Amino acid sequence: MKTKFKERLHSAWTSTDSMLCVGLDPTEGKLPVGLRGKPDPFFTFNKAVIDATLPWTAAYKPQFAHYAAAGRLDELGRTMAYLREVAPDRILILDAKRGDIGSTAEKYALEAFRIYDADAVTVNPYLGGDSLEPFLRDPARGVFVLCKTSNPGSADLQDLEVRGGSPLFLEVARRAAAEWNTNANLGLVAGATWPGEIGRIREAAPELPLLVPGIGAQGGDLAATLAAGLDREGWGLLINSSRGLLYASAGSDFAEAAGRAAKELCEAIRRETSTLRAEGGA
Amino acid sequence: MKTKFKERLHSAWTSTDSMLCVGLDPTEGKLPVGLRGKPDPFFTFNKAVIDATLPWTAAYKPQFAHYAAAGRLDELGRTMAYLREVAPDRILILDAKRGDIGSTAEKYALEAFRIYDADAVTVNPYLGGDSLEPFLRDPARGVFVLCKTSNPGSADLQDLEVRGGSPLFLEVARRAAAEWNTNANLGLVAGATWPGEIGRIREAAPELPLLVPGIGAQGGDLAATLAAGLDREGWGLLINSSRGLLYASAGSDFAEAAGRAAKELCEAIRRETSTLRAEGGA
Repeated sequence: MKTKFKERLHSAWTSTDSMLCVGLDPTEGKLPVGLRGKPDPFFTFNKAVIDATLPWTAAYKPQFAHYAAAGRLDELGRTMAYLREVAPDRILILDAKRGDIGSTAEKYALEAFRIYDADAVTVNPYLGGDSLEPFLRDPARGVFVLCKTSNPGSADLQDLEVRGGSPLFLEVARRAAAEWNTNANLGLVAGATWPGEIGRIREAAPELPLLVPGIGAQGGDLAATLAAGLDREGWGLLINSSRGLLYASAGSDFAEAAGRAAKELCEAIRRETSTLRAEGGA
Repeated sequence: MKTKFKERLHSAWTSTDSMLCVGLDPTEGKLPVGLRGKPDPFFTFNKAVIDATLPWTAAYKPQFAHYAAAGRLDELGRTMAYLREVAPDRILILDAKRGDIGSTAEKYALEAFRIYDADAVTVNPYLGGDSLEPFLRDPARGVFVLCKTSNPGSADLQDLEVRGGSPLFLEVARRAAAEWNTNANLGLVAGATWPGEIGRIREAAPELPLLVPGIGAQGGDLAATLAAGLDREGWGLLINSSRGLLYASAGSDFAEAAGRAAKELCEAIRRETSTLRAEGGA
C-alpha cells in the first residue's frame, strides 16, 4: 500500500529539516545566455537548479503554464521524471490550478497524477466540493486548494463577506477542514503577502498544510508568515520561492547562486522556526 | 486590424443562424470501436464530427483535460488547426478553466491564444480582476468567466450570499459587466441546469454573451434557458452540447448521428428563439 500523502509530507519536512519549496518556472527570456537556443533549455536549467538546491528543499513545484506557453510540456515531463529519480522523498507539486466538474475533473486528476506523476496538484475551489472530490480520491496524492492568493486582486472575491461577516477565503478554509478533507490529503494555498489572513486560516484549519507563495519577488514577510502559519507541531508550511532562487544570478553560475539562495532561505526558515518553537508560539 | 471578438461572435451567430456550440471532448473508452487503437483517434474522431456538424454550429469548444489526460495534446493542436481551416468564421473556444496571477496568467493566455490559436478561453474568477486582465488584453480574443457552473456543488461557494444578500455568482456577473469588460470581449459561463440563475445573470449583465453547458446529459432545460438568457437582440447565447452529440451513435455512423443531433438541437434552438423573439420576450 502506498504511503499516505500526509505522512509523505511530514517525512519530507523532518528528513530535510526544511519547509522550503522551490518553484520551477523557467521563462525563455530569463534563461542564462549560455542556455538559450540550446536543445531542451528548460530541462537543462531545471536539472542544474534541482541538483544545486536539493539539500535545502522539501518540495519542488513546477508551474504548468510556463512549459505550456513555450510549447515545452515534454520538458515538464522530463523534469518530473528527473525529480522522481533524484528526489524520491521530496514532495512534487504540479502547480496547475485546475478546476472542473465531474468526468472532466477526473481527467485533470489523471493529467496531474498519471501523466506527470505529481504527488500533489493545486486546484481552484470556485466550482465547489464535488469538483474537488476526483482530485482528493487517492489518499496517496495531495491537493492544495486556493484559499487566499498573493495578488492584490485576491480581495475582489476572496475577501467578500459571507454569512456571519467572515470573508470567503475563510469559508473555503473552514469547509476544507470540516467537509472536504475526508482523506487527510488536502492543503490550502495562502499568499505570504497576507500574514494576517494566514493566521486566520491557521485558526480555521489547524491541521492543514499551507503552501505559501509570495516570499521574495512579491514582497511577502517570512517571519510574519511563519509566526502566523506554523502548526501545533511547528511544521505545517511549504514556503515557495521561484524567481528569487531561479534568477539569483543571470550568468553561467545560475545553479550555484540558486543553491546559495536556497540554503539562505532554508536556514532563515530554520532560525525563525526554532525561535518560534522555543517561545511555544508554535 | 483584427476583427474584435464581439463582432466575430455576432457574425458567427447571424451567418449560421445558430447558437449551437459543439463540445469536442473525446474519451478513449467511448470512441467507436473502429477508431480504437488506430493512430490519432481523437483527431480522426473530431474531424468527422466537425465535418458533419459544421452547417449547424456557431462555435466549437474542445475541452483541454480530455486531451491532456490521454497524452494527446498534439491532437488538440491538430483539431484547432483543422477548425481554423474549415471553419474560419466560427468561434473556437478552448475550455481550459485557467486562472493564475501576473506573469503566470500571461503564460496561460499565450497557451490559449498563441499555442492553440483559440478565439476564446474559459477562465476562473476566484483570483480576482487582476488575474483576468492578461486574458482580456487583446480585444480580438474572448474570455468566458465562470459564473454559475452546472454542477450541484456550484452552490457551495457560488450561491453564498455576499454584501446586500445577493449570491457570489451575481457579484461576479456584476463586476464582469461593470469593471472587467473594458475591451468588450468578456462573456460568462452559466449552466443550463439553473435557468432561474441565468435570468438573474442576464439582468445583471444584459450585454454579455453567455456560454451555457449542461443541456442534454446533465439535464438542462433548453426552452427555459433560452427564455431566461437571450439578450435584447434575441442572441447572446452559446448553447453547448458535448456527449449528446459525440456519442449519439456508438457505431461507425457516429459522425452522421452527431450531424443529425446537431441539426435537431440547432433547429430546436431556432424554433424556441423565433417564438420568444415574436413574443417580444427577447
